[in-house]
Amino acid sequence: MSTADTPLAVAGQTYHSRLLVGTGKYRDLKETQAAIEASGAEIVTVAVRRSNIGQNPSEPNLLDVIPPHRYTLLPNTAGCYSAEDAVRTCRLARELLDGHDLMKLEVLGDEKTLFPDLVETYKAAEVLIKEGFQIMVYTNDDPIAAKRLEEMGCIAVMPLAAPIGSGLGIRNPYNILEIIQNATVPILVDAGVGTASDAAVAMELGCDGVLMNTAIAGAQDPILMASAMKKAVEAGREAYLAGRIPRKRYASASSPLEGTFF
Amino acid sequence: MSTADTPLAVAGQTYHSRLLVGTGKYRDLKETQAAIEASGAEIVTVAVRRSNIGQNPSEPNLLDVIPPHRYTLLPNTAGCYSAEDAVRTCRLARELLDGHDLMKLEVLGDEKTLFPDLVETYKAAEVLIKEGFQIMVYTNDDPIAAKRLEEMGCIAVMPLAAPIGSGLGIRNPYNILEIIQNATVPILVDAGVGTASDAAVAMELGCDGVLMNTAIAGAQDPILMASAMKKAVEAGREAYLAGRIPRKRYASASSPLEGTFF
Amino acid sequence: MSTADTPLAVAGQTYHSRLLVGTGKYRDLKETQAAIEASGAEIVTVAVRRSNIGQNPSEPNLLDVIPPHRYTLLPNTAGCYSAEDAVRTCRLARELLDGHDLMKLEVLGDEKTLFPDLVETYKAAEVLIKEGFQIMVYTNDDPIAAKRLEEMGCIAVMPLAAPIGSGLGIRNPYNILEIIQNATVPILVDAGVGTASDAAVAMELGCDGVLMNTAIAGAQDPILMASAMKKAVEAGREAYLAGRIPRKRYASASSPLEGTFF
Amino acid sequence: MSTADTPLAVAGQTYHSRLLVGTGKYRDLKETQAAIEASGAEIVTVAVRRSNIGQNPSEPNLLDVIPPHRYTLLPNTAGCYSAEDAVRTCRLARELLDGHDLMKLEVLGDEKTLFPDLVETYKAAEVLIKEGFQIMVYTNDDPIAAKRLEEMGCIAVMPLAAPIGSGLGIRNPYNILEIIQNATVPILVDAGVGTASDAAVAMELGCDGVLMNTAIAGAQDPILMASAMKKAVEAGREAYLAGRIPRKRYASASSPLEGTFF
Repeated sequence: MSTADTPLAVAGQTYHSRLLVGTGKYRDLKETQAAIEASGAEIVTVAVRRSNIGQNPSEPNLLDVIPPHRYTLLPNTAGCYSAEDAVRTCRLARELLDGHDLMKLEVLGDEKTLFPDLVETYKAAEVLIKEGFQIMVYTNDDPIAAKRLEEMGCIAVMPLAAPIGSGLGIRNPYNILEIIQNATVPILVDAGVGTASDAAVAMELGCDGVLMNTAIAGAQDPILMASAMKKAVEAGREAYLAGRIPRKRYASASSPLEGTFF
Repeated sequence: MSTADTPLAVAGQTYHSRLLVGTGKYRDLKETQAAIEASGAEIVTVAVRRSNIGQNPSEPNLLDVIPPHRYTLLPNTAGCYSAEDAVRTCRLARELLDGHDLMKLEVLGDEKTLFPDLVETYKAAEVLIKEGFQIMVYTNDDPIAAKRLEEMGCIAVMPLAAPIGSGLGIRNPYNILEIIQNATVPILVDAGVGTASDAAVAMELGCDGVLMNTAIAGAQDPILMASAMKKAVEAGREAYLAGRIPRKRYASASSPLEGTFF
Repeated sequence: MSTADTPLAVAGQTYHSRLLVGTGKYRDLKETQAAIEASGAEIVTVAVRRSNIGQNPSEPNLLDVIPPHRYTLLPNTAGCYSAEDAVRTCRLARELLDGHDLMKLEVLGDEKTLFPDLVETYKAAEVLIKEGFQIMVYTNDDPIAAKRLEEMGCIAVMPLAAPIGSGLGIRNPYNILEIIQNATVPILVDAGVGTASDAAVAMELGCDGVLMNTAIAGAQDPILMASAMKKAVEAGREAYLAGRIPRKRYASASSPLEGTFF
Repeated sequence: MSTADTPLAVAGQTYHSRLLVGTGKYRDLKETQAAIEASGAEIVTVAVRRSNIGQNPSEPNLLDVIPPHRYTLLPNTAGCYSAEDAVRTCRLARELLDGHDLMKLEVLGDEKTLFPDLVETYKAAEVLIKEGFQIMVYTNDDPIAAKRLEEMGCIAVMPLAAPIGSGLGIRNPYNILEIIQNATVPILVDAGVGTASDAAVAMELGCDGVLMNTAIAGAQDPILMASAMKKAVEAGREAYLAGRIPRKRYASASSPLEGTFF
C-alpha cells in the first residue's frame, strides 16, 4: 500500500515543508539563519514591529538571512493589541516589501498571557481582506471562531496549542481536531509548542502545518532543536497518513477504548 | 553551540539508530523487509517461538530478510509464560544461531494483558546470565524492579510504555524517568507505543532507545509508519539533547510551572 | 487552624450551595424534583424554550417542582443561535416570571458541538444589560472573552469545562485558572462535567460554583448522581480552602515539580 | 431506580466509611484526633516503628486518641526495607496489641522514592500469612503482582496511586482498573493521593476504598482537608454506583469516544 501526500498549499504556492518558523529571540542573525536552515522551513514569519526589514536602512536587515528567492516571507503583527495597530502594521509591511500581501494577523488581548483578542482580530481581518491582503490568522482554539475567520475570507487559520512562549503543547486536542475537521482552508497550529513531540501530536491530529518560534530559539541548542522539529513535523505527518493502530487497554481487547479512558 | 550525541552501545557494539523493531504481524516477508528497511533499525527482534529462524529448514527463513551482516539479531522469548519456557527458548535460539548470545527476555504474566511476570523474569534472568547470555530484559515500569534487573547483570532494561499492542503510549512518564535516572545500563522503552509522538516522548524523557512492533506492523501503511517512527525517534533524541524551553503558564511568567499543573 | 468560607453571592443574594443544576432530560417531573432535592442546589436553571414555565397554562408547569420560595430560578436561553433569539427569550421569561431579571445567557454556535458563539453572545449581553437584566453568561474558556464579558457588566461568567453534554471534564484547566485569577465576579464552570471528580477538580481550581445538567439527568441513577455531585462540589471547595500538599515526584524531593511533568 | 451499596468488608468486619487514614505528620495528638474524626474513617493505620502504641509506657500513647472500641487499628510496617524487618515489626505489633492480627504490610525499595520492593513483599507476606496474620498489602500498580498477592492469601491489596507523599494522584488509571477487575478481594488505593478529586477518581474507577495520610496531615488545614476527603470518597463511590454518562466529543455524537482521545 502506498500513501501519497499532497504538498501544503498557501496563497497559490505549494510547500514541501509543513514547519513554519519565526525569527525572534535568537542571539544574532547568524544563529537565526542556521536555525532556519536546519528547520527546513520554507515560510518564515517576521515581526514587522520588532525586526528591521528595511525600516532602518543603515542597520543589518533581517531579510539578508532569509532571502525572498528562497523563503516565503510571512510578515506578522506581533505586538499589536488593537485592530487599528494591526492594520497599520500590515500596510507598512506591504509598503516595505513592494506589495507583498501575505500576512499573519495576530491581535493580542493582554501583555501577560498573549492570548488573542478575537473581537479585534475580526475587525482587523475584515479591513485587511477588503484591502486585498491574504490573511493567515492567529486565533484561540475555539471552533466557532475558527470557522468565522475562514468564512470571512482568511486563507489559513492558525489556532494556538497553548499561550505564546508557554511550551505547554496542545492543551485541548479535541478543539484542534474539531477545527481541522470543519475547515476547508489550511489549519496550522501556532504558539505553545514546547518540544518535538508537541509538534508531532499537532500533525497527527491532521493539521496542515505548525508554526513556532520560542521552542526553537529558546532551546539550549536552537539549531539542533530546529532539526528535531523538522523531523517531528515530518514524523507526525507520516504517522497521520500511515493510519495508526487503535488504542486499546491491551492487545487482546475486542474493541478500541471507549467509555472509560484517561 | 554544538551538542554531540554518542551512539547507543549494546553488548560491545555501537548503533546509530535508536529504534529497534520486531518482525511479527506483517502480511509477508516482503513487507517485513521493506518496513525494517524504512525504519532504519539496526537491531531487529525475532520471536523464536513464532518465527522460522531455521527450525523448519524447508520453509521460508525469516533471516533471509534480516541478514546478520546487516542487522543485529535480537531473539526474544515472546509467548513464554514461565522462566523455564523462556530459558529453554533462549537455549534453542543460541543453538540455531551458532552461539549467538544476545537475547531479549520476556516472561509474560497472562495472555489477556501480556503484562510481564517479574518473579518468573528474575528467575529466568538469573539462569540465563549464569549461562553466559547477554540479556536485554522486558519489564514493567517499576523503578525498583528495573534496578534489580540491572544489578543482576542484565545489559539493558526495557520497561513498557503500556501493555504490548495497546498503542496507549507512555502511561507513567515519571516512572520511566525514574528508571532512566537511576540506571547505568541502557534503558529502552518497549511495548505500548502507538504512534510517532509516543516514540518522541520516550526519547525526550532521556531513554536510550525504543523498541516496537505492532505500532508499525499494525498501521494501515506499515512502511510509511516505519519511516515516521525513524524520524520521531531521531526528533525526540535531538530534542532531548537540544534542551527544551521550560513549561510556563505563559511566556511572561517569572518561573516555570510548579505547584498546580495538569 | 480554621478556614472559613464565605457564601456564594449572586445578584445580591447569598447561597450555601455552590452546585447549580438544570432541569432538562429527566424522565418526568417527579424525578426532576427528587434529583434537584438530592443535589442540594439553591439555584436551578430552566430552558425557557423547552420548558413550560407558564406558556401553556393547561399543561404541567415545571415551576411546580421548583417553587420560587425555595429555589432561585435561573431562566436560560438554551436553543438560541443568535443574539436576537436570546434577547427575545429573556424578555419572554421576564414577562412570564413577573419581572424576574436574573438570566443565564447562552448563544450557541452550531447544533453539532453546542460551542458558544461569542460574537452573538456579546451582542445579546449588551442589549440585555441595557434593558436591566442581570446576566450570568455562558462562554468558552477564553480568558480574554471572559474578561470582556465581565467588563460589559455580566454579573457572573460561566466558562465551559468541555462541550455541553460531552462529559469530558475540564479540558483546559490552565484557561479556567486564568479566568478565575483575573475575575472580580463569580466564575462558575458550566457544561462538560461528566462525573463527580470533574466537579471536584473545578472547585479545586478555585471557581465559585459549577452548573450541570446532563451529568446528573443522564446518569443511570440520577438521584444518586445528584448526591454525588453535591458532595463532590463541597469536597472540591473544602480541598481548595484547606490548601493541598504540593505535587512532587516523590516525598523526599526538595522542591515541587517543575520543568518536566506530565 | 435505586442503587444500594454494600459496606466494605475487611477481615470479617464491615465498614460504612471507605476512607482509611494514617496518623503520621500531624502537629500533635489533638490535631491527629480531630483530623481522624473529621475524616469519618473507621480503620486507622499506625506506623509501628514510628508511633508509641505501648513500646514506651511512660510517654503519650497514640492509641489514646484512636480508641480500639471505636476504630479498627491497622498497624503497618512503614520504614521497613526488608522482609525480615517487616515480619519482625508485625510480630511486635501483635504482641503489643494482645494478638491483634490485622496488619498492613509494606516493604519499601529505597528511601528516595518509597516505591515498594515486591520481592521482599512476597517473602514477608508468605511468612506472615503462615503465621496467621491477616495481611492488607501495599504494592505498586502492577496487575500481575496484585493478583499474585491475592493468590498468596492477602485479604486486601493496596496498589499505589503514585509514590508515597507525592500528591500526584492516580498515575496509571488503566492499571488500577485492571487490578480491580481481576480481584476477588478488596482493592484499596494507597499512597499518592494529593487532593479531593484524586480520591474521587480512585473511587470512580471502582476501587473499594482509599488510604491516605500525607494529603490530609500535610494540608494547610488538615481538619478541613479530612472533611474534604470524606466527602470526595463518598462522592466518588456514589458516582461509580450511579453510572456516569459516557464521554463523547460532543453531545450529538452518535457513539462514545473511541480511537482518538486524549
